[in-house]
Amino acid sequence: MARHSTISFLSDYGLDDEFVGVCKAVIRELAPHATVIDLTHNIAPHDVRAGGLALARSAQYLPTGVVLAVVDPGVGTDRRAVAVEVAGGQGVFVGPDNGLLAPAVAMAGGAERAAVLTNPDYQLPAPGPTFAGRDVFAPAAAHLCNGVDLADLGELIDAVSLRPGLVPLTRIEDGAVVAEVLWVDRFGNAQLNVDPAEIELLGDVVAVQIGSTTRTARRAATYDEIPAGAIGLVIDSYGLVSVALARRSAADELGLGAGDGVTLGKAE
Amino acid sequence: MARHSTISFLSDYGLDDEFVGVCKAVIRELAPHATVIDLTHNIAPHDVRAGGLALARSAQYLPTGVVLAVVDPGVGTDRRAVAVEVAGGQGVFVGPDNGLLAPAVAMAGGAERAAVLTNPDYQLPAPGPTFAGRDVFAPAAAHLCNGVDLADLGELIDAVSLRPGLVPLTRIEDGAVVAEVLWVDRFGNAQLNVDPAEIELLGDVVAVQIGSTTRTARRAATYDEIPAGAIGLVIDSYGLVSVALARRSAADELGLGAGDGVTLGKAE
Amino acid sequence: MARHSTISFLSDYGLDDEFVGVCKAVIRELAPHATVIDLTHNIAPHDVRAGGLALARSAQYLPTGVVLAVVDPGVGTDRRAVAVEVAGGQGVFVGPDNGLLAPAVAMAGGAERAAVLTNPDYQLPAPGPTFAGRDVFAPAAAHLCNGVDLADLGELIDAVSLRPGLVPLTRIEDGAVVAEVLWVDRFGNAQLNVDPAEIELLGDVVAVQIGSTTRTARRAATYDEIPAGAIGLVIDSYGLVSVALARRSAADELGLGAGDGVTLGKAE
Repeated sequence: MARHSTISFLSDYGLDDEFVGVCKAVIRELAPHATVIDLTHNIAPHDVRAGGLALARSAQYLPTGVVLAVVDPGVGTDRRAVAVEVAGGQGVFVGPDNGLLAPAVAMAGGAERAAVLTNPDYQLPAPGPTFAGRDVFAPAAAHLCNGVDLADLGELIDAVSLRPGLVPLTRIEDGAVVAEVLWVDRFGNAQLNVDPAEIELLGDVVAVQIGSTTRTARRAATYDEIPAGAIGLVIDSYGLVSVALARRSAADELGLGAGDGVTLGKAE
Repeated sequence: MARHSTISFLSDYGLDDEFVGVCKAVIRELAPHATVIDLTHNIAPHDVRAGGLALARSAQYLPTGVVLAVVDPGVGTDRRAVAVEVAGGQGVFVGPDNGLLAPAVAMAGGAERAAVLTNPDYQLPAPGPTFAGRDVFAPAAAHLCNGVDLADLGELIDAVSLRPGLVPLTRIEDGAVVAEVLWVDRFGNAQLNVDPAEIELLGDVVAVQIGSTTRTARRAATYDEIPAGAIGLVIDSYGLVSVALARRSAADELGLGAGDGVTLGKAE
Repeated sequence: MARHSTISFLSDYGLDDEFVGVCKAVIRELAPHATVIDLTHNIAPHDVRAGGLALARSAQYLPTGVVLAVVDPGVGTDRRAVAVEVAGGQGVFVGPDNGLLAPAVAMAGGAERAAVLTNPDYQLPAPGPTFAGRDVFAPAAAHLCNGVDLADLGELIDAVSLRPGLVPLTRIEDGAVVAEVLWVDRFGNAQLNVDPAEIELLGDVVAVQIGSTTRTARRAATYDEIPAGAIGLVIDSYGLVSVALARRSAADELGLGAGDGVTLGKAE
């Protein structure tokens, strides 16, 4: 009996090779009723942190069903392949147990049941051990859509044994918020790990220190109200503070990339 | 009652971030029966003209249903978010009122009814005002598929108040056609805003002036019959004159980009 | 009566233009019940060999139904547009007769019936002869899904007249295997045209000659067990030998691209 009808799919497979297409072909063959939603497949190769953050940003918007996520530098080694149930079984995350799933699982209320994907009956025979998306993860996602129970995919494991994801926290130093760029989007906006409440006391004009350079930025409600030539701090569509310019790339002009440090302090 | 079953989707969101995927997740949750057709999401960031032209090129091939188009540099400002009905309600365009929709709406017979998307009942609560695709446009597209009437999405407005799109026209100067590159495609073919009839009198050999350089080009029926080393003028798949080379990029070799001027005259 | 419900689609159209989207719009209009699976659209422009290899790698995983493949530098010339039936009609390949389909057709058991797509009743009227994907191939794929017989799309032709694909073979020279890079994937792994059995006698340590440089490589079961700084030979997910580094691009570091020669010999 069909249980889920949607698979949301994120990976670092890119779109130049046929990897994503073959995973979808496998799903189509096993669970023809399932619809696949591509979140993105252009996570930088092997960048587990970036994949985990993209999945977490998407989490609250995902349809009930299966989430298939593959950023898997350790493919074929002893890292575990897992399926993780959340929300009373309304959602199941499938992917490697390397921290990729953890932030989104947490946002979905936390892991309730988890299984290691070891049952070969629900895998494809693999010519080589390096394409687990096709041979292990996509088949598991499809079988879950078909109503196969988590416990049939492999042995159940204690959810607390799942590898956590590391989300960087801010710290306060001399009254300034020492933060980090979580993500640079296509438009060059640099999302920080900063909640608006953390900088409320700094006022509308904020000193932004990047490396050894300090600039002045202004709070703005939208990208387009940032004056030309000025730096804006905008509450982005995920509710976090981002560094932005109007119609230009803040990341390019300020030299910002994911993981870079940014300190927000009181302007002189 | 389901009214539309297809949403054709174009944007400048790119495929590196999860923007497109999240919009589709929102649609899947609200209108699970709807199929999304991706036209392209790689319109250059904020390039309203390029997005409008791509939409116009697609227009006659789009299935009946909803067209969702988002190239929206003014997101969050007072530019209006709109839905525009064409062809007795068989088609509805959803997007920002910044000229993006106008050329395709015109090709579909012109706007009949239009509404501003102001009703919060058909939007998602937004953590920030900068992702209207997810919070305003995709939900509107989904609700239209579900049979919600235009008038329920917000107040009806006069269609003549919609912002027009600007499509560049040719002009004649000294017997030559002063034209412009509308679009460079992946293969490097440069589509001009020139109807074949406009250059009929010039004959099969045409003087092509780009900047201060004039070259000779020949009319050709297909790309592959252009001789090696020669420049061809081909009637492209949209019925417009394009500058092309056989199996090489005319845009790269001639230094042509969208918006560049090209003058077609009589060869000596 | 609907006959097929899935179209697997590969092309060199890229995702920057609306080419792929318009083909899907055409399919949606003609055969709304059909689901399109995108294999990849980022085959390098005009690279028939790369497209044929990607299709062959995918072949055994494709759902029953129609395969639509378009890498077509000779579009509009006298190269034939064809549909090729395999496996008693369970699969039909649609595309140009330029060798693109041949390797996958062979893997699917070989061509059984073939037709030239000449019947204008199953094509779109074309403003120009250069977008056969939209005007000829996508409509044929859709009509096949709707139950139209191959023989209705155009005259049947002898399958042996179809243009073969050229897959490079290895040769033995002085006890070494003279091979070729078939494909470099996103992660920089370089797949060779070498079956593991061909290098079994060389042992676990292999001399890899690229151009005039010879390096030592070790057989490894997974990418991640290759020691840092070392070169690995991994049996990839298609069962072929590939040159790989752990979490870095072997192609970048060793200067390897598709078509390059690589010789595998006994290490000193």
